[in-house]
Amino acid sequence: MLINKIEDVRNQVKEWRKEGLSVGLVPTMGALHEGHLSLIKKAKEACDRVVVSVFVNPIQFGPSEDFDKYPRTLEADTKLCDGEGVDVVFAPTPNEMYGGGRLSNDTLTYVCPPFFYVNKLCGKSRVGHFDGVCTVVLKLFNIVQPDFGFFGQKDAQQVIVIKKMVKDLNVPIEIVQCPIVREESGLALSSRNKYLTEQGKIDALVLSKILNNIKVCYNKGITDVSALKETVYSFLTDKHELEYIEILNRETLEEEKNANKNSIALIACRVEGVRLIDNIYLGE
Amino acid sequence: MLINKIEDVRNQVKEWRKEGLSVGLVPTMGALHEGHLSLIKKAKEACDRVVVSVFVNPIQFGPSEDFDKYPRTLEADTKLCDGEGVDVVFAPTPNEMYGGGRLSNDTLTYVCPPFFYVNKLCGKSRVGHFDGVCTVVLKLFNIVQPDFGFFGQKDAQQVIVIKKMVKDLNVPIEIVQCPIVREESGLALSSRNKYLTEQGKIDALVLSKILNNIKVCYNKGITDVSALKETVYSFLTDKHELEYIEILNRETLEEEKNANKNSIALIACRVEGVRLIDNIYLGE
Repeated sequence: MLINKIEDVRNQVKEWRKEGLSVGLVPTMGALHEGHLSLIKKAKEACDRVVVSVFVNPIQFGPSEDFDKYPRTLEADTKLCDGEGVDVVFAPTPNEMYGGGRLSNDTLTYVCPPFFYVNKLCGKSRVGHFDGVCTVVLKLFNIVQPDFGFFGQKDAQQVIVIKKMVKDLNVPIEIVQCPIVREESGLALSSRNKYLTEQGKIDALVLSKILNNIKVCYNKGITDVSALKETVYSFLTDKHELEYIEILNRETLEEEKNANKNSIALIACRVEGVRLIDNIYLGE
Repeated sequence: MLINKIEDVRNQVKEWRKEGLSVGLVPTMGALHEGHLSLIKKAKEACDRVVVSVFVNPIQFGPSEDFDKYPRTLEADTKLCDGEGVDVVFAPTPNEMYGGGRLSNDTLTYVCPPFFYVNKLCGKSRVGHFDGVCTVVLKLFNIVQPDFGFFGQKDAQQVIVIKKMVKDLNVPIEIVQCPIVREESGLALSSRNKYLTEQGKIDALVLSKILNNIKVCYNKGITDVSALKETVYSFLTDKHELEYIEILNRETLEEEKNANKNSIALIACRVEGVRLIDNIYLGE
């Protein structure tokens, strides 16, 4: 069932609650791929009823980012959700979510994750991005009031920041984190892969190759973070514009001199002008 | 019943929910007076069960403000609550609410109301104050999950900012605003009145006198905001340190050239070094 109005999705969830059913929410920006479907399958396993939200959130895009260009495929998304037995696709308009008028921190209440968690990795180049993410996620949580929220590890910093928000603000919802889904080639699934040419998709394999190589080196006993990060340069060509490669604590995003079982390696790199990210846990 | 732990108050509310009972929350910083009791009475009327939170919230005090000195009278507060038939007094420690460690926007997720609502009135001198207020109020809402939250009009900017937060973040709670309670003299009740000497309490009457006079002038047909604000100077002596006098829209805090039925007059003034605030609706 496709629902566009906040009131309607609330009423639907209220009905389920009366019947004592548990509810899972999978927040997405649409352009659904196998990665999203893995979240939905997980939600279906864990919950009696599943809501998938499809909303390209204007306030998490910077002025020079791809908000207008971001793929919007609601009809296909709804079909995919139907195929997975999703109970409600919640696809509000920006106006339904934010009302009319200019969207800024002069006019709207924002949820702002701690600087320490956002002044690095993707947050460094995407200033205000995680404020926008946390704000919309908390709104969706308050609208749907699910028992569980499902997020992909692909956006590692995002999950960490949302878990921190849930803890700091005592949000009564459990966050379930699901593993990255990859093409057979190793390329992590992303809605932004649609921007790549066939050659671009080949060039983009370098992200997962770099991460796998770091893990191989770590497993061979190299733990010095600087040394592990140095390994990337043998992979990069003039097709690749590296934004960051970091090895951090996977819960707190703290820097550590030596990689360990709680480390995560994260990379952001542009290929054909498309900004791609990927990550890997070293300790499992 | 006095409860200190988040988990315990959550379990208690869950029990009530199972019985289909409605729940009201009255968030306070303790040092309860008749003003708070009026909120509690209102909550008792409207809800099956009432929780009063007593928590002096460190993150809403500036470094030079009275956090350490702020009156803490939990035993007396609990007795007053018992007398009103309050079901639970929730009095967590700062550690229970925020965990250990330093409290700052480097380490904690904050809820930040729009600049337009906080770069004026009390927010101008108390930078970050309303971020701290919104953050703790949302935490209390998420912990208790009441149907209604009760706030006094005394802290007018606070109620406006909280209503805006509830709207912007789709918080599923109704905010009930209760009128200011005054001593017979006209002095608005405040926990900070305890800091005043007997002479100070007399000098402090100037706040309500100024506001009443503005309302009288407005009712006589003077609507020019500058002219109305000018009237304050005939009341002030060297006992008074005026911080602001403003006449604004009572919902949006917008400045208007002419006062009207939606205007609120607000004042902040120091007496004996104690910062006092008061306000009055012109249109009722």
